[in-house]
Amino acid sequence: QPAWAQRDAEMDAFLDDLIGKMTLEEKVGQLTLLTSDWESTGPTMREGYQQDIAAGRVGSIFNAYTAKYTRELQQMAIDGTRLKIPLLFGYDVIHGHRTIFPISLGEAASWDMDAIEKSARVSAQEASAEGIHWTFSPMVDVARDARWGRISEGAGEDVYLGSRIAKARVHGYQGDDLGAVDTVLATAKHFAAYGAAQAGRDYHTVDISERTLRDIYLPPFKAAVDEGVATFMTAFNEYDGVPASGSRFLLTDVLRNEWGFDGFVVTDYTSINEMVPHGYAKDLAQAGEQSLNAGVDMDMQGAVFMENMVKSVEEGRVSQANIDRAVRRVLEMKYRLGLFEDPYRYADQARQEATLYKPEFLEAARDVARKSMVLLRNEDNVLPLAANAGRIAVIGPLGNSKTDMIGSWSAAGDRQTRPVTVLEGIQARAGDGVSVEYAKGASYEFADAGKTDGFAEALALAKGADVIVAVMGEKWDMTGEAASRTSLDLPGNQQALLEQLDATGKPVILVMMSGRPNSITWANENVPAILHAWYPGTQGGHAVADVLFGDYNPAGKLPVTFPLNVGQAPIHYDMKNTGRPIELGEPGAKYVSRYLSTPNDPLYRFGYGLSYTTFGYSPAKLAATSMGPGGSITASATITNTGERAGEEVVQLYVRDLVGSVTRPVQELKGFEKIMLQPGESRTVTFTLRPEDLAFTRADMSHGWEPGEFQLWIAPSSGAKASTPVTFSLTE
Amino acid sequence: QPAWAQRDAEMDAFLDDLIGKMTLEEKVGQLTLLTSDWESTGPTMREGYQQDIAAGRVGSIFNAYTAKYTRELQQMAIDGTRLKIPLLFGYDVIHGHRTIFPISLGEAASWDMDAIEKSARVSAQEASAEGIHWTFSPMVDVARDARWGRISEGAGEDVYLGSRIAKARVHGYQGDDLGAVDTVLATAKHFAAYGAAQAGRDYHTVDISERTLRDIYLPPFKAAVDEGVATFMTAFNEYDGVPASGSRFLLTDVLRNEWGFDGFVVTDYTSINEMVPHGYAKDLAQAGEQSLNAGVDMDMQGAVFMENMVKSVEEGRVSQANIDRAVRRVLEMKYRLGLFEDPYRYADQARQEATLYKPEFLEAARDVARKSMVLLRNEDNVLPLAANAGRIAVIGPLGNSKTDMIGSWSAAGDRQTRPVTVLEGIQARAGDGVSVEYAKGASYEFADAGKTDGFAEALALAKGADVIVAVMGEKWDMTGEAASRTSLDLPGNQQALLEQLDATGKPVILVMMSGRPNSITWANENVPAILHAWYPGTQGGHAVADVLFGDYNPAGKLPVTFPLNVGQAPIHYDMKNTGRPIELGEPGAKYVSRYLSTPNDPLYRFGYGLSYTTFGYSPAKLAATSMGPGGSITASATITNTGERAGEEVVQLYVRDLVGSVTRPVQELKGFEKIMLQPGESRTVTFTLRPEDLAFTRADMSHGWEPGEFQLWIAPSSGAKASTPVTFSLTE
Repeated sequence: QPAWAQRDAEMDAFLDDLIGKMTLEEKVGQLTLLTSDWESTGPTMREGYQQDIAAGRVGSIFNAYTAKYTRELQQMAIDGTRLKIPLLFGYDVIHGHRTIFPISLGEAASWDMDAIEKSARVSAQEASAEGIHWTFSPMVDVARDARWGRISEGAGEDVYLGSRIAKARVHGYQGDDLGAVDTVLATAKHFAAYGAAQAGRDYHTVDISERTLRDIYLPPFKAAVDEGVATFMTAFNEYDGVPASGSRFLLTDVLRNEWGFDGFVVTDYTSINEMVPHGYAKDLAQAGEQSLNAGVDMDMQGAVFMENMVKSVEEGRVSQANIDRAVRRVLEMKYRLGLFEDPYRYADQARQEATLYKPEFLEAARDVARKSMVLLRNEDNVLPLAANAGRIAVIGPLGNSKTDMIGSWSAAGDRQTRPVTVLEGIQARAGDGVSVEYAKGASYEFADAGKTDGFAEALALAKGADVIVAVMGEKWDMTGEAASRTSLDLPGNQQALLEQLDATGKPVILVMMSGRPNSITWANENVPAILHAWYPGTQGGHAVADVLFGDYNPAGKLPVTFPLNVGQAPIHYDMKNTGRPIELGEPGAKYVSRYLSTPNDPLYRFGYGLSYTTFGYSPAKLAATSMGPGGSITASATITNTGERAGEEVVQLYVRDLVGSVTRPVQELKGFEKIMLQPGESRTVTFTLRPEDLAFTRADMSHGWEPGEFQLWIAPSSGAKASTPVTFSLTE
Repeated sequence: QPAWAQRDAEMDAFLDDLIGKMTLEEKVGQLTLLTSDWESTGPTMREGYQQDIAAGRVGSIFNAYTAKYTRELQQMAIDGTRLKIPLLFGYDVIHGHRTIFPISLGEAASWDMDAIEKSARVSAQEASAEGIHWTFSPMVDVARDARWGRISEGAGEDVYLGSRIAKARVHGYQGDDLGAVDTVLATAKHFAAYGAAQAGRDYHTVDISERTLRDIYLPPFKAAVDEGVATFMTAFNEYDGVPASGSRFLLTDVLRNEWGFDGFVVTDYTSINEMVPHGYAKDLAQAGEQSLNAGVDMDMQGAVFMENMVKSVEEGRVSQANIDRAVRRVLEMKYRLGLFEDPYRYADQARQEATLYKPEFLEAARDVARKSMVLLRNEDNVLPLAANAGRIAVIGPLGNSKTDMIGSWSAAGDRQTRPVTVLEGIQARAGDGVSVEYAKGASYEFADAGKTDGFAEALALAKGADVIVAVMGEKWDMTGEAASRTSLDLPGNQQALLEQLDATGKPVILVMMSGRPNSITWANENVPAILHAWYPGTQGGHAVADVLFGDYNPAGKLPVTFPLNVGQAPIHYDMKNTGRPIELGEPGAKYVSRYLSTPNDPLYRFGYGLSYTTFGYSPAKLAATSMGPGGSITASATITNTGERAGEEVVQLYVRDLVGSVTRPVQELKGFEKIMLQPGESRTVTFTLRPEDLAFTRADMSHGWEPGEFQLWIAPSSGAKASTPVTFSLTE
C-alpha cells in the first residue's frame, strides 16, 4: 500500500464529521467534474458552471490553470458554499505542462526509467505551480494496432515495458508525498483495454478474452496500483459487452476487490452519457446508476450524476452507502492534498513565476528528447554528420514547423513560438561556414496527395546540397485521440518527394516525426539513414541536431513493432507460435501461417534500434539450469562496445515458456538494462528471474507459473534470432 | 435428433459384439485416417499405408476415389484384416465433385437455399458414385476479415445466413437417409472460430470472448447439429489458449454436453501433431492423449494415435472407456452407411458411369453459378449487353483461363479442359455478326506488378471494340487455405490496365473473379458496370454470359462486406454502435469513432446487390407492436418491381435490440426471402419473429432474450438507412 493509502484516524474523523453534514445534493456535487474553457483572452468559465461551483454542485474542475485563475475559482467554492469544500483541479498534463517533452510513445523508446520519471516530475512541478492538483496521465493502455491514433499516448505494445513505465510515470507525478505542493495526483487510464479497438478505429468495440485482458492489458494498471496511483480513469470502449464506465467486473471485482485500489475512479469525458448510444442504458439516469453502482466515483463533464443522481438515490436505485463511499474517496484525496488545511496552497503566483520553463526543465526536455530517438537505419555510417557538413538542405513539412514538434497534447505549452524546429536546431549547431537552408517541398495533408507544388524548389535546393535532411511523417494531430488511420504510409505527397530527393543521388537522411509506426518500407530499402524522432517537444530541434551531429549517440529502441504495411496490423512481437509457424516450412512453403506476398516479419521489430557504435553480445550464461518455488535464477551476458564511439545499449531479456496449460508467446520481455560503454569496454549484465516473473493466467484462470522448460535470450532486440537462447527449467 | 441418431438395438448389439472382439491396436486403427495419393498415372497408395490397411492400423482413407480404386482399397481391408471392418472413404468435396459449382462464398451470395442444397446434392451423387462416403464440407466458419484466404470456403460474415446455409448444405449432402448410396456424410468444420485469425493470417492465433464465440462463431455449427450433420472437424487455431483439437470445452462441454452431438469428430490435417508447435503438448504422445481425452475421435493424417495411443492407454493416460467411446462413434457411422452389410455398396462402376457430369448436373451448376453472381454497379444500364453488341473485347487474365474458373478446391473436377471460360461463354452466346475477341493484357501474378507487357495488344483490341469486358480479379489459389493477403487490391498489373482501358472511353464492364472481397474502390468510381462472379465453376463462362446478355437477371446479394481498403479490416455490418457512433457528429466531426481519411462505410454493404430491374419497398408494417413469451410478431412489407424486367429480389429482415444487459449489434439479419416479380408486380412478404429469434448470450452468460425495445427493417440490404425501421417491444 502506498503511504497515502494508510488509514489516518484524524482524516477519518474529519471526513465522518463532514460527510455527516452533507446533503445528498452536496454529495453528488463532489462526484461531479466539469471543464473550464480557454479563450484568446484567457481562461473563462461558463456562467452556469460558475453558479454550479458556488452552489456546491461541482467538486472538481479540469482545464483550469494558472495560479491566479485557479485561486479565483477556488474562492467561488470556498466563499460560495455552505461547507467550504475545496475544488480539485485536474488537467491533461500528458508529456509536459509548459515545457513539453516528447510524446509518451517517444519517451517509452528511451527505455530509460529515470528519464521518463524526470519528465513526469518536471510536468508535476510546472503544473502544480499553476494550481493543478491532478493530471490525467499516465495512459497505460497496451496498444498493438498502429492504426489506432492513441498509440502515441501510451508506452507501446509490451506488458513488461509498459508496466515499468507506468510505475516511473506515477512516481514522477506523485513523488513520495501527495501532500507536497509540487506533486500531482496521477491517473491510470483508460481502464481497460481501450487499445484493443476493432480495426484500430478509436472508440470502436473491443472483443478479447479475459485471459488476454489479464495477461496483456491489465498488468500496467496493476503496476500503477502497486506504485500508489491515486486515481483511475475509465475507458470509452466496452469490455465483454459492457461499457467500461459501467463494468462492475473491472471497477469493483478487479480494481477494488482483487487489487485493493483505494483511490477514486473518474470516467473519461462524458463516458457515462455514452452508455446510452452503446446500447447498455436506456437513458442517462440509468446510465448514471449503472456507472455509480459499478464503481465509478466521479462523472467527467457528462453532468449525469449532477442531473439524475439525487432522484436515483431517492427512488432506491442507488444506495446512500454507495454515494457515501464515492464521496469519501474523493474527499480523502482532497484531504491528502492538504486542501482542507489550505485550499489555495497550490495557487502560488511566486512559485509559478519561478517554475515555468526553468532552464533545467528545458535541458531535461532536450535530454529526454534525444534519448527517445531511434536510429532505424544508417548505411555506411552516413550519420553522424560532420560539423563541417558543407551545404545542408532541410526539406519537408515537418522541417520547420513549431506546432508539429509538440504532438497532439500540448497542455499549457506554447505551440506557436517556443518549440525549436529541426531547422532551427541544425542551424544552431552547424559549424561555421556550413549552409543550412530549408524548403518545405511536400505536404502531409491527405488532400495534397498527388500534388507536386513545392517539389521543384525542394529539388533545386537538394541538388545544390551536400546532404539532405528530409523531415517527414505525420501532422501533429494525425495521432492522438480520434486520429485513427487505415493506412500507415506517409500522408500527402511526401513519399513522392522523398523518392525524387533520393533520385538526386545526394545522401538523404530521413528524420521521421510521427506518433505511430509508419510503414516506411520504401525508405528502409532506399534511404541511407532514418532517425525516428516522434514529436520531440519544446526542445526537439536541438535534440535532433544533437543526434544528427553525433553530440549525442542515439540509443532508443522501439517500444512497438513497425509493420511492413497496414495489412499486417495488429502485429506484435509476443505473438503465439501457432500450430504451423512459418519456420516449419521452406521459404514460400504453402501450408504455414503466412501471407501470400508479404513476409510475417515486420519492418522493424520491437526493441530494435541502432547506435553510432556497435555492440557485441556474448552467449548468455545461466548460474543454474533450474529453479524451484522460492528460488531464482540469474542470467548474464557480456556486452562489448565493438565500435569506436561511446554509446548506450538497452540490453533486453526475453523468455519463452515452451509448453503451458495454455499456449504461451514466442517471446516475452522480462527485463532490460541500459548501459553506457566506452569503445572497447565490456560489461556483464546480470538479470535475476524468480518463478513469479514467469506467471500468467493458467488454464483454470488462476494466476501463477507452471513447471517446465523455458528458453531465455539476452539480446539487443526481440526476435528469436536476435541472439542464441539458453534453456532452463522450472521445477515444482 | 436426426433419424440416424436414433438408437438402434440391432446396431448396438452388433457393435457390442464387434468391439468386444477388437484388440486395442484394432481399435486405434479405427481412429486413424490416412491419405491416398494421386499421380498422373492414376490413384496410388503409399506402400506403408497399404500394409496399414491390411493390418487394420487404419480405418478410414481420404483422397481416394473412383469406384474401381475404392473397391481395391476396401478389398485390402476386408481380405486382409481379422475382423473385416470396412474402410470409410472421405474426400474434400467442397463445391462439387466432378461437376464444379461456384465456390462456397459465391453460392452463399445466391441467398437461395434450394440452389445451395442442390449443389450439395449433386456433389453427393457424383462423389458417392465414385466410392466416397464422406465429404469434409460444409465449412461453416463465420469470416469477417477479407485478408483471410479461407473466407472463400465459407458462407460469409453472417450468423443467420451462415446457419441457414449450413443446414442447406448438410441436408444436400446427407439427404434424409445416411444409408442411401447416393448420400455422403457431411462435416461441419472447423470447430471453432477458425475465421477469427489475427490480422487475417491463416492458422494465426484467435482471441475472442466466449460471448462472441457463442453469439457469432458457434451458431452455424449448432445449426449443422440440428440438421443432423454426421461429423465435425476440429480447427487448426487455438481458442482461449487451447488448440481446438485439444479443447475439452469445445469438443465435450459444448458439442456433446450442450448440443448432444452424436456423430464423430475428426481432426483437421495433422492438427494433433501441431499441438506441439502450438506449445500445448510437450510431445506427440501427450498431444494425442490431450486430443482424445478432449473429445477427438479420429486423427487425420498425423498418425499420432497410430504411433502412441496403445502405450498411452497401457500406461493409463487414456482410459479404455474413452477409446471405446471413440471407436463406437466411428463404427456406428460405418454401420449406418450400410458398410457392414456390403462394404462395396458405394463402389459401383455402372452407377459411376451413369452419374458423372450428367447434363442435368451441368445445367444445375450453370444455374447456381448465375444465381451466385452479384451486380455491384450498372451505371446508365450499360448492362445487359444487346445481343447485337457489335465488337466485344474480352480482356484480362481471367477472361479465358479454365483453371481459374474452378477456384481453389477442385475435388475430382477437371480444371484443364472442361471449364467454360468467360470468353467461351460470351462467344457461345453472342449473336450472329458479333465479334468477340480476347487479349490477356494484364497479369494477376504479384511479381508482375509494374509490368506492361500485354497492355499494347489489349488496348489496341479495346480501341477497336464497342464494349470491353474486363475479366479481372485474383488467381484461383490466392484464396483458400493458406492464401491470406495483406492487400485487397487487384494483384499484379491489372489495376493499371483497367485504368488504361477506362481511359479509352469505351464502356468497360468489369467481371470480377475472386474468392474474397476486393477493394475495387477505383473501379466503383470509374467503371460503369461491375459484376462479381466469384469462381463460378465448370459452367461459369456460360453463366457469366447468361447474366451479361440479360438471359438471366442477376439477383445475388453480398454475403460479406467489401471494405474500401484493407485498413478497415475486419469489418462487418453487425458491428456495435459504440459510445461515439459517427452519426453523433457532423461529417468530419472529431471525437467520434471514425478514421481520419477513410469513411466508416464500406465499399459495398452486406446484403447489397443490384438487378436489371428495380424494386420499391413499402414501409414495413407490424401486425402488433409487442409480443411476450410464447408469442410472435409478424412484419410485412410490399415489394414492387418498379422496372421493366422480371427479376428476383432477396428481401431482408434486420432487427436491432436497442438496449441489452450487454451491448447488441446495430443490426442483425433475422430472415430473408427471395421472390420473383414481373414488371409492375407487387408482393407482400411477411416474416414472423418469436422472442427466441432475438436470443443472445446475456450478461450472465445464459442464452435467451430480454424484454425491451427493438427496431426492425425490411430492406434490400443491410444498413440503417436501407429502409425506414419500425419499432416493437418484447415484454416479460
